[in-house]
Amino acid sequence: MSMPRQERALEVAAAAGAEALLATQVSTVTWLTGYAPPIETGPNPWAAAPLALLAGDGPPVVVVSEDEEAAARGLGCEVVSYSGYGLGPIETTKHAARALRTALDGRTRLATETGTLPVAFADGLALVDVTDKLSLARAVKDGDELERLRRAIHVCDAGQAEARRRAAAGTTELEAWAAVRAAMEQAAGGRFPLLADFISGPRTAGVEGPPGARPLAEGDLLIADLVPRIDGYWGDSCATLCVGSASPSAWRAHTTVHERLERLLEACRPGVRSGELDAIAREGLRYPHHSGHGIGTSYHEEPRIVPDWETVLEPGMVLALEPAWYGEQEGVRLEWVVLVTEDGCQLLSQHELQL
Amino acid sequence: MSMPRQERALEVAAAAGAEALLATQVSTVTWLTGYAPPIETGPNPWAAAPLALLAGDGPPVVVVSEDEEAAARGLGCEVVSYSGYGLGPIETTKHAARALRTALDGRTRLATETGTLPVAFADGLALVDVTDKLSLARAVKDGDELERLRRAIHVCDAGQAEARRRAAAGTTELEAWAAVRAAMEQAAGGRFPLLADFISGPRTAGVEGPPGARPLAEGDLLIADLVPRIDGYWGDSCATLCVGSASPSAWRAHTTVHERLERLLEACRPGVRSGELDAIAREGLRYPHHSGHGIGTSYHEEPRIVPDWETVLEPGMVLALEPAWYGEQEGVRLEWVVLVTEDGCQLLSQHELQL
Repeated sequence: MSMPRQERALEVAAAAGAEALLATQVSTVTWLTGYAPPIETGPNPWAAAPLALLAGDGPPVVVVSEDEEAAARGLGCEVVSYSGYGLGPIETTKHAARALRTALDGRTRLATETGTLPVAFADGLALVDVTDKLSLARAVKDGDELERLRRAIHVCDAGQAEARRRAAAGTTELEAWAAVRAAMEQAAGGRFPLLADFISGPRTAGVEGPPGARPLAEGDLLIADLVPRIDGYWGDSCATLCVGSASPSAWRAHTTVHERLERLLEACRPGVRSGELDAIAREGLRYPHHSGHGIGTSYHEEPRIVPDWETVLEPGMVLALEPAWYGEQEGVRLEWVVLVTEDGCQLLSQHELQL
Repeated sequence: MSMPRQERALEVAAAAGAEALLATQVSTVTWLTGYAPPIETGPNPWAAAPLALLAGDGPPVVVVSEDEEAAARGLGCEVVSYSGYGLGPIETTKHAARALRTALDGRTRLATETGTLPVAFADGLALVDVTDKLSLARAVKDGDELERLRRAIHVCDAGQAEARRRAAAGTTELEAWAAVRAAMEQAAGGRFPLLADFISGPRTAGVEGPPGARPLAEGDLLIADLVPRIDGYWGDSCATLCVGSASPSAWRAHTTVHERLERLLEACRPGVRSGELDAIAREGLRYPHHSGHGIGTSYHEEPRIVPDWETVLEPGMVLALEPAWYGEQEGVRLEWVVLVTEDGCQLLSQHELQL
């Protein structure tokens, strides 16, 4: 029995007049198959990026190097593999292209993501790009996806709690960061990819950035935006903490941003356009970025919460909501993740937001 | 004035009858331009992978989203950028393809890496695949590359020293690991991509793996293989430590592996084929993997040190040498990085190897 998201993927392919869907973005491969390839160290020099094929008559087929085969098995998919890293000559592209031909089994009319399909694999194929349609099809989550997202958000909660424990005068950003990531790894039971902003003091006015050698000082704000990928699904979370007592302007900004976030939770329900949420978020605030975004196998995905965006909320969508305020010398951003339900939304994040 | 590696790249393109070289692997882009894109969180959902174009009549041209533009500037390259993440509609593939056309400026006969060039960018281009030739061209390092490699190896040294301090009974792999990475981040001044094996006890017999919840116990071996990417270049290093007193079999294995590594350092000089090094490394040992490899903008690259490999060592090549031994319940691997000089080699790694 195929999952609802696989049905939606097949509809996208059928609407494009294709015989099958060929997923080429890592995030779409994970979405279709559950297989979460390693990403932390960039492209594998000895393997092509994984591909996934879905046709109406069987389970998804994953095309990976034999080094990834064990990880890709046991997910209800077929696996077609090609030779991986070994002691002899290696011809990755040739072997991967051949494995794809095996998986295609004579099919040539494909709906695919042409921005990430290597030209070396495309000979003789008739391709229709469905990147944008897949992006929308991925917005509503299945039950097993929600379970993975909850696990990822639990890891965020652990990191945010540790950030609160470590935000002390004299500690450098990098020292606090190392403790935060260690706490998240403890919660996850191992390593995982982690996108993050971890900035303090005047750096918070700059919206984003990695931790550096700067020591925290009394009165500093610290923005901790923690975005781990656990088992292929991204969590997201942001809090703004203060080392000691906050300035009056920081208090005011924090109060307004927090209020906007609460207001977003009230407004978030099926039928609302994401652009309407964006307008609610920005009332009385100023920030250069989105007011939020879907999360799933990408850390930013539909529905985008930006001005005038027309995506209509549906039950099963998972949104990260992140109103913010940035001044000359300090910034505040707060982010919680919610699940859109039949008649409103449910808060998935458990981390605290107080200054 | 172009760098020696750019001259070699142009020779590869000319030999293929091409008007220009189009680099599409992240590692080749970094090699040609110095630009090291972020890789730790997988493909950017709002940007195509970076491209670099080199023709005879000017500096390399980097094609990136405007979100990466600042990082790509100041490297002696031209930058052609396309719109990045923003509040309005985003059409990454279309805009990136258009930016590439701008960079190509009418050129269509290109030497390239077809295994990583998106099909959406290839319309109307006449492509010759030169992946293998570029791989060989990258093996000899320029002076600025050596400087970056030395910095990456310095970060390895810091991690290995910390592993030695933290390998104590009762500490879990994950706890020791967090301290090791924190020490490396201190040495580097920030975050960086990090490939690693960090395994203890019977897990060392399994060659590779990430740190887990296993507590270290008296008599355990710990394999710490630390491979950071600093500013686009990968360091590499491996030591095998013992918590307390090692078993006689571990001592014997360690002594033999260490001896082989010393022997490799004596043998390593211009004119030697890498397959000869491999044979020297394996004498009296058994392991399923290579005996070493080049490092640079990829963590594994030419010269591969595997049986019968014909690549001939040249001054300026940088090799990671890693003989090993794996038994039923324990394993030992030692790895140092050397620079091939005019008449031998120079040890770049500074970390200790004793058990």
